[in-house]
Amino acid sequence: MDTNIKSYMQRVGRAARDASRVIGAASSATKSAALKAIAEGADVAREDIKQANDQDMQAAQANAVDQPLIERLFVDDKGIDQMIEGLLQVNALKDPVGEMSDFSFRPSGIQVGKMRVPLGVIGMIYESRPNVTVDAASLSLKSGNACILRGGSEAFHSNQAIAKCVAAGLKAAGLPSACVQLINRTDRAAVGELIQLDNFVDVIVPRGGKSLIDRISKEATIPVIKHLDGICHVFIDADVDAVMACNIAFNSKVEKYAVCNALETLLIHEQSALEILPSLAEQYVNAGVELRGCQIARNITQMKSATEQDWSTEYLGPILAIKVVVDLDAAIAHINEFGSQHTDVIVTRSFANSRRFIAEVDSASVMINASTQFADGFEYGLGAEVGISTDKIHARGPVGLEGLTSQKYVVFGNGEIRHR
Amino acid sequence: MDTNIKSYMQRVGRAARDASRVIGAASSATKSAALKAIAEGADVAREDIKQANDQDMQAAQANAVDQPLIERLFVDDKGIDQMIEGLLQVNALKDPVGEMSDFSFRPSGIQVGKMRVPLGVIGMIYESRPNVTVDAASLSLKSGNACILRGGSEAFHSNQAIAKCVAAGLKAAGLPSACVQLINRTDRAAVGELIQLDNFVDVIVPRGGKSLIDRISKEATIPVIKHLDGICHVFIDADVDAVMACNIAFNSKVEKYAVCNALETLLIHEQSALEILPSLAEQYVNAGVELRGCQIARNITQMKSATEQDWSTEYLGPILAIKVVVDLDAAIAHINEFGSQHTDVIVTRSFANSRRFIAEVDSASVMINASTQFADGFEYGLGAEVGISTDKIHARGPVGLEGLTSQKYVVFGNGEIRHR
Repeated sequence: MDTNIKSYMQRVGRAARDASRVIGAASSATKSAALKAIAEGADVAREDIKQANDQDMQAAQANAVDQPLIERLFVDDKGIDQMIEGLLQVNALKDPVGEMSDFSFRPSGIQVGKMRVPLGVIGMIYESRPNVTVDAASLSLKSGNACILRGGSEAFHSNQAIAKCVAAGLKAAGLPSACVQLINRTDRAAVGELIQLDNFVDVIVPRGGKSLIDRISKEATIPVIKHLDGICHVFIDADVDAVMACNIAFNSKVEKYAVCNALETLLIHEQSALEILPSLAEQYVNAGVELRGCQIARNITQMKSATEQDWSTEYLGPILAIKVVVDLDAAIAHINEFGSQHTDVIVTRSFANSRRFIAEVDSASVMINASTQFADGFEYGLGAEVGISTDKIHARGPVGLEGLTSQKYVVFGNGEIRHR
Repeated sequence: MDTNIKSYMQRVGRAARDASRVIGAASSATKSAALKAIAEGADVAREDIKQANDQDMQAAQANAVDQPLIERLFVDDKGIDQMIEGLLQVNALKDPVGEMSDFSFRPSGIQVGKMRVPLGVIGMIYESRPNVTVDAASLSLKSGNACILRGGSEAFHSNQAIAKCVAAGLKAAGLPSACVQLINRTDRAAVGELIQLDNFVDVIVPRGGKSLIDRISKEATIPVIKHLDGICHVFIDADVDAVMACNIAFNSKVEKYAVCNALETLLIHEQSALEILPSLAEQYVNAGVELRGCQIARNITQMKSATEQDWSTEYLGPILAIKVVVDLDAAIAHINEFGSQHTDVIVTRSFANSRRFIAEVDSASVMINASTQFADGFEYGLGAEVGISTDKIHARGPVGLEGLTSQKYVVFGNGEIRHR
């Protein structure tokens, strides 16, 4: 291990911890002033940001980086507008810090309740998309946390340009610049150090490919909020509106392929399959989606044969697995066995089945009669998200302000002592 | 690794996962029937439990186990009464599973809210105290979780006798016995396997000595809810009721020494020290507490000298560190630097200082004018607790029903699809 990077990350960590005490106690007005100043700064610095992004784009093209990554990397005026809008949206959210609730008196005379407080220091590790820098910084600030951001090397200049606006905004509001620190080392060793800064970092939020996240969660000595896979299902029940079912199943897959909330396995009740599958399959095929079905599905409509492997594959592309199931129980069992506890949908007219589905499907988001593609922080009204969690403790689903806080117990007394 | 124990623990894990689907979907009435049946069964099995406990006690005495452990191990009729009362109290709590909240419509037309759901499978690792078996089983059941219990070898027979009542109660309510499984292997390898059953266990709650918990949290590949230390503080402010301050400081230390919520470091404002410290010190010394003070404290009252080490030591016995501080800022800084984020108290007449203390002290429980010894699940109204968390994510402080659940997102729609 390079001792140089070790000591650099230790300094970053200590500075973040110190800054977290300041931002954690900052007033809503101060945090708001910072967010607005960052938004104004980004507006003024448009040319700088685009120029920096151009540098990254040229390097990416020179390195023959693959097309999806280049698309995610690109920042134009519209992208900057979205960053600014995101900052103002987060600013408009209610300040979660200090919310007190559930106070009640106990027989001893003490009054016990809860207060919502920042987690402290958030470590974000992410790839290409420079707007994550703004989303993470704004949500951390608003929730009273300091953050350490480690963006991808391919977005190095873009992230630096954005971080400059963030630092200026913090300064304008009188907050320490260490509230948001962007790691200026792009080597992997920086990540290795960050995820073991137990004393200084309270939670790690990785975003990126499965192998990155898998490695981080194995090696981290700090809690990690993450999702590895988005193997999302739509189950078309027996009693359904066929048009609605097709719309939801189609939109869930085709609206965008390379997202974690895209449909990967379609389950369809055997009583609906004959009516719905032929036309729905045609829609998919016309859109360029390759279908891989179970034997019963293939008896109804011509398609490739699905293997056991397909039920647990996140394609992130124009491939869809299809399985015909005998009933709701079989659908729920399939989802709980092969799914990734991300987002799963039932399309049904049955009230009883809708209740069972949302209670028994063990996923971060369960939906009735809506597209899987709604599963994100913006659509849920969180303002933005730092990531989506498929973990079961702390936060499930899109992680916004609330996921970056926790609740401590507060006790009010009048001199009470305990007699055991 | 003994493959025998590996396959045994795999079977236990799989059975727990399967059972968790059943208990997670069980009605409140079914869970209540089980809890009541277990309570009745424990009443009927009093002699069996006491006899089994006697076996453990004799073995412990033969092995010259230390006195505190023997005290924790002992179960008499009063202990069984408390177990039964605990079961009935947990039964009387509101069922948290399925609670839905915060539903609101979004511009897209979907309605988004949250549902409280069990975590799934809880792995409990604990030592000597057999009543933990009942507390853990009852809280897991009520919160819709399956649990795997690994008690200490010294309580083997007691735990087996209690587990028999639990199994009978589950059976009477028509629930699978694998909802609560007691590991019948007392070797350490069982713990090593349990904490790596990623596919089957959702959270590990260890209770016991610091070294055990430290080892578990290092080696576990599953999230761990834990506390390592209870370095609790009382800060006596400048403007205080001297009698109240002495009562709280004395009770926080002396009411019980060997508990994690006992006072370990007393902080006292320099403006109060001269008035309060001499008589308070005398009280402590009369109770047999050894005092270790900073230089200023020693100028006021004779006591041993505290070293830097004392500020971060959990004595769990009749020793108290004392430090005189110049102001509230110094008190908060000391607590945040040397404390263990467990439970910290301010005694003050100042409204402004009380607000700053609860906002800025970064601990699981922060109290104003009450004894640290109140920090437990029963005193907080949680019915019981499976443990106390000093982690910052998921649950802080005493962990009861809510800490054994999390919230998933539920989306209600009417055929909405997303247009990006």
